Amino acid sequence: MITPDWVAEIRPVSAELDDALRSKIDLKTKPVGALGRLESLAFQVGRIQQTTEPELRHPHLWVFAGDHGVVGQGVSAYPQEVTWQMVLNFLSGGAAINVFARHNGIRLQVVDVGVCHTFEARPDLVRAKVQPGTGDFTKGVAMSPDACEAALSVGAHCTDEAVGEGSNALLFGEMGIGNTTSAAALSARLLSLPVGKVVGRGTGLDEAGLARKRDVVERALALHAQANRPLDVLAALGGLEIAAMVGAMLRAAWHQCVFVVDGFIATAAFVVAQALTPSVRDYAVFAHQSDEQGHQAVLAALDVQPLLSLGMRLGEGTGAALAWPLMTAAVAFLNEMASFDQAGVSNKHE
Amino acid sequence: MITPDWVAEIRPVSAELDDALRSKIDLKTKPVGALGRLESLAFQVGRIQQTTEPELRHPHLWVFAGDHGVVGQGVSAYPQEVTWQMVLNFLSGGAAINVFARHNGIRLQVVDVGVCHTFEARPDLVRAKVQPGTGDFTKGVAMSPDACEAALSVGAHCTDEAVGEGSNALLFGEMGIGNTTSAAALSARLLSLPVGKVVGRGTGLDEAGLARKRDVVERALALHAQANRPLDVLAALGGLEIAAMVGAMLRAAWHQCVFVVDGFIATAAFVVAQALTPSVRDYAVFAHQSDEQGHQAVLAALDVQPLLSLGMRLGEGTGAALAWPLMTAAVAFLNEMASFDQAGVSNKHE
Repeated sequence: MITPDWVAEIRPVSAELDDALRSKIDLKTKPVGALGRLESLAFQVGRIQQTTEPELRHPHLWVFAGDHGVVGQGVSAYPQEVTWQMVLNFLSGGAAINVFARHNGIRLQVVDVGVCHTFEARPDLVRAKVQPGTGDFTKGVAMSPDACEAALSVGAHCTDEAVGEGSNALLFGEMGIGNTTSAAALSARLLSLPVGKVVGRGTGLDEAGLARKRDVVERALALHAQANRPLDVLAALGGLEIAAMVGAMLRAAWHQCVFVVDGFIATAAFVVAQALTPSVRDYAVFAHQSDEQGHQAVLAALDVQPLLSLGMRLGEGTGAALAWPLMTAAVAFLNEMASFDQAGVSNKHE
Repeated sequence: MITPDWVAEIRPVSAELDDALRSKIDLKTKPVGALGRLESLAFQVGRIQQTTEPELRHPHLWVFAGDHGVVGQGVSAYPQEVTWQMVLNFLSGGAAINVFARHNGIRLQVVDVGVCHTFEARPDLVRAKVQPGTGDFTKGVAMSPDACEAALSVGAHCTDEAVGEGSNALLFGEMGIGNTTSAAALSARLLSLPVGKVVGRGTGLDEAGLARKRDVVERALALHAQANRPLDVLAALGGLEIAAMVGAMLRAAWHQCVFVVDGFIATAAFVVAQALTPSVRDYAVFAHQSDEQGHQAVLAALDVQPLLSLGMRLGEGTGAALAWPLMTAAVAFLNEMASFDQAGVSNKHE
């Protein structure tokens, strides 16, 4: 399938302000480097926005939801209906992501990209169903090239909408029973990781379920051995909500906006996006390390260290929402802390 | 020296509500355990407050400041005057802790327990100087039993004041050039850790400085070999701001309030408090793992895993302030998330 034209327009972040940013950070009233990861975060946001006074405006979290044909293979501890039931839970404000988004001042919207359920119109629900669920990728492709392209567009459009409303910081989460299986298959193929390393217990499989899930991923990878280009892999092994996240992330980079990558599934979407255009990485902040076993392997392969490691494995964007206050804190220290000169504090012994 | 009477009144947290809390957490719309550390945090706050609907009110962060006679031995990369200069920076709102406390809705007050400087009255400065700095503990005790007791009282009084104003959550930080040396000595003695493990670079010592600091701690431990009871160790090797933190932490536990332990120095204060009365541990949340080398060893000896690990090494309470949103998020999910029944979501396959 064909990569959308605009993807070629994504640019790496300019290094022009790097020295100014570093010097501003180093002259704050603290030993050099004493704020650790917050310093690199402030630096990253500053260079994305190309200013030494960055600002994070109207954070917007999209939760993309879709169903997976592969659940017929018994790869999840929960039944498929939980996908639409959780979408309704999101819309009623009762899920973990609602609590954390509300708590941290993040606007939350839910997108039906491919749930096996017909939703009525509801505030904060974007009805953009491409099709009801993917096909079982142990028997054929998960989705056609057209469906994959449509799902990518849904995600890109969501980013456009948030940016149009004044946001310059995007967060992405997902809901889709069965999607750790898809994420494992995508990561195994695109990062050349062994199946045993990327397949985990998801929402709580037992030993037999885990063995079955490994076998499913092995069979899927064998069936789609010819799929190697990023979007072909996505169509063969992905999910509609994952494809939407790929589009949304790429489009965030196109808008030169920072975006926050949640857990295992969101990282798999990032892997696809990065395989298409490595520059997307400059715009990505990795929120947390999931307790899902595959996530550690994928993060290591990407050589990234996320901000949080709290043993969470829920998805929905919960890790991204919880990491958000660290991002605003990083920008705040860059803008608000006094320098040694300003505060009249003696610097280090020379 | 004599332990204050009220310390004997500190009680371990009751296990009476443990089942109710566990069940409430497990029935939320998420796989069991999927919120990881946030679940144990919600559980801890619920049992401290003895309710399944805990509430964190008016978080109050005290920064205790004091100077250290041992800086004369060349154990810090910064001159001693930085202690009082940073106190003024705190009072002007320009330090990292000001930014993070403001950012996260935490009330901040600064306490002069023993700075070598005379401060004028300023809002948010508590002038409670016991004496201007400690003695050089390579030559004698850091402070007399009376001074140590007075510093403990200052800390306890600060907690009383915050609780009196309606706070039920205390955070503690510190400022004191040279205080990683004192924290290392206290931890080495009370946890029987080797000096090489607990002495680090502090604000940025070079190799020669690090070797000198190790030697200083070795000599201090040898000189005060007879000091083994917690408060004797504190008087011999501690700092006035550290003693105040010990008092403040103990008093928070006495009030049955949760308190947040910041980095290396605050953890050393906790070590003293726990040596006095192990129950204090039930009330403590460990905010972050500092990049200061000794902190990892001390946390491992205490068998605790802090919430954040961001490579920070600044003190001031910055780690505590940054961990705060995770605590409020934990309480929020416990109070606000829907259960499977409430949301009409199917639970796991049986």
